[in-house]
Amino acid sequence: MSRTALDYGDAWFEPDEFDEVRRRLPIAYVNAVPVRVGPDGQLEKVGLLLRSMDDGSLGRELVSGRIRYHETVRSALLRHVENDLGPMALPQVPVSPQPFTVAEYFPTRGATALHDPRQHAIALCYILPVGGECTPRQDALSLDWLSPAEAMSDGIREEMRHGQDRVLAQALAHLGELP
Amino acid sequence: MSRTALDYGDAWFEPDEFDEVRRRLPIAYVNAVPVRVGPDGQLEKVGLLLRSMDDGSLGRELVSGRIRYHETVRSALLRHVENDLGPMALPQVPVSPQPFTVAEYFPTRGATALHDPRQHAIALCYILPVGGECTPRQDALSLDWLSPAEAMSDGIREEMRHGQDRVLAQALAHLGELP
Amino acid sequence: MSRTALDYGDAWFEPDEFDEVRRRLPIAYVNAVPVRVGPDGQLEKVGLLLRSMDDGSLGRELVSGRIRYHETVRSALLRHVENDLGPMALPQVPVSPQPFTVAEYFPTRGATALHDPRQHAIALCYILPVGGECTPRQDALSLDWLSPAEAMSDGIREEMRHGQDRVLAQALAHLGELP
Amino acid sequence: MSRTALDYGDAWFEPDEFDEVRRRLPIAYVNAVPVRVGPDGQLEKVGLLLRSMDDGSLGRELVSGRIRYHETVRSALLRHVENDLGPMALPQVPVSPQPFTVAEYFPTRGATALHDPRQHAIALCYILPVGGECTPRQDALSLDWLSPAEAMSDGIREEMRHGQDRVLAQALAHLGELP
Repeated sequence: MSRTALDYGDAWFEPDEFDEVRRRLPIAYVNAVPVRVGPDGQLEKVGLLLRSMDDGSLGRELVSGRIRYHETVRSALLRHVENDLGPMALPQVPVSPQPFTVAEYFPTRGATALHDPRQHAIALCYILPVGGECTPRQDALSLDWLSPAEAMSDGIREEMRHGQDRVLAQALAHLGELP
Repeated sequence: MSRTALDYGDAWFEPDEFDEVRRRLPIAYVNAVPVRVGPDGQLEKVGLLLRSMDDGSLGRELVSGRIRYHETVRSALLRHVENDLGPMALPQVPVSPQPFTVAEYFPTRGATALHDPRQHAIALCYILPVGGECTPRQDALSLDWLSPAEAMSDGIREEMRHGQDRVLAQALAHLGELP
Repeated sequence: MSRTALDYGDAWFEPDEFDEVRRRLPIAYVNAVPVRVGPDGQLEKVGLLLRSMDDGSLGRELVSGRIRYHETVRSALLRHVENDLGPMALPQVPVSPQPFTVAEYFPTRGATALHDPRQHAIALCYILPVGGECTPRQDALSLDWLSPAEAMSDGIREEMRHGQDRVLAQALAHLGELP
Repeated sequence: MSRTALDYGDAWFEPDEFDEVRRRLPIAYVNAVPVRVGPDGQLEKVGLLLRSMDDGSLGRELVSGRIRYHETVRSALLRHVENDLGPMALPQVPVSPQPFTVAEYFPTRGATALHDPRQHAIALCYILPVGGECTPRQDALSLDWLSPAEAMSDGIREEMRHGQDRVLAQALAHLGELP
């Protein structure tokens, strides 16, 4: 959740201006849970980004980012996957627009399980099988592939930011693979 | 799709300012398809609003409206249902946040099947069984209850605005009741 | 999962004959998770049946049962809800046939997380808001309404049979209410 | 819908015996809609099998078949895809067990839109992107790739058997591509 239109040269908003707008309007996001699946479609691993956060700490996140003006959900997914996982990830973009859930991040801590201090984000959440090689870019330090049991361990859940361990649990449940 | 934050006394934006913002940022919406169901959950009728449009013509629409800053999807649904169908509609708000589809309305005519000249709207779409009495308010002239076959007739489809006859067809398909 | 066609006077199969058939053919089931929701559709409680099992022990189960020959999914849901929760439960049968998941119960213990020693059951799983009074019948001792956190506590999960605590976790995740 | 366990050497039932059982018990099926998608996940074509039917006529069908005893839904999908589309189809088996709909085929003509004279079939319906080469086998004459508009033309809809043009319309609606 650490990027905005501004990170990608979007000329529409000055940073100050965007900070202002997103304190008054919910911002449309996509969240994607990268997964490795076997030849029969069975889940093997989920991918989590390890990132250095704005406050200098380390934290784990899903692939995530804003939907731009006049951009389709599908294009936004592809753009953020390429930004986070590199150009060789070979993602299978979902064929249906139906997300497995909608995640609502509120700026007020404690109001809800999902939290983003910068904004009220409404994220369409998708499972994203990737078949290629992932080379995290930008401020991501690594992409770690974990088994469902590892991903749901207390240690990893605590490292996840914004309450995204809940979105991850929902993704695993949707896949029938919540331990 | 004819209302904005401004219609409901939202103090956050001046009209000019909101018009400006929504030409640069996708706006999060909910779309709801009101339905009457029998005691066994079987679809009986779908409800379509007849509205006088901004250009003076008549047109049909789904229940629809913006999600406000710091408002949950569920609250936005309830608010727009009450605005469009009145306080006695007794809607069954969906228990799951998973929409049956996401409708993407673009401002450029012809770019996509769904069109909204004022903005790029990303609408979470839900089925909304209503059990009470509906008394359309505001600029809606009536709420007409139609059978699936009537709703999918050429005449009605042509009266629907923004390409919403497609969202309606998707809703009926999701219910297993597309004729 | 403790009832068959035979429990309800279905004349098609003798008990021995049905026991024989269901060791050779997967049996179509419905699973329903009864829930209490607030006026805004927010989950409040989930209902779990406490039942004396075939082996004399006590265990917890979801509402569950077979789909009969020439019976719709919707009718099967209604029939099993009435059998398990009584005639005054006032369930909201789902308007869409899309289940939140499909649960596969195998007769071989350990083969999968879900287990039914009598059969291979393929269960369509639905959330079922109930608004009326529930009076468990038949071999159910009680229907207990639990908060999501209570339902996911270790104690309750261990009391659930057939691995249905996993189906329950999937239901809560689908509702965005998995603790 | 023209194959049974018997077609594949399943030793559990004699043909007569299976014909008998499936007049008394609903049979669990999978239906799959093969699709070609672009690199961005956008639907390009849907695949329909052209088959010579039992009555000697030609008709179109989806990929379809029974789930066997002790077979997972995912394995059944893979088996029927390979049977119908050949071993080089390279299907992307769905990662989630949630079907886009459940299709209920009844043996009584006119009772419902979906009809199968041999049985009451309950089919879990999935979208199936295929990336490889399809070589229809068995009694299929060809697999034809059609645009959504072609697939929904009156001519093609009339050629589809068992009412499966409705399942196809539901699939296209789920993909946001119903014309």
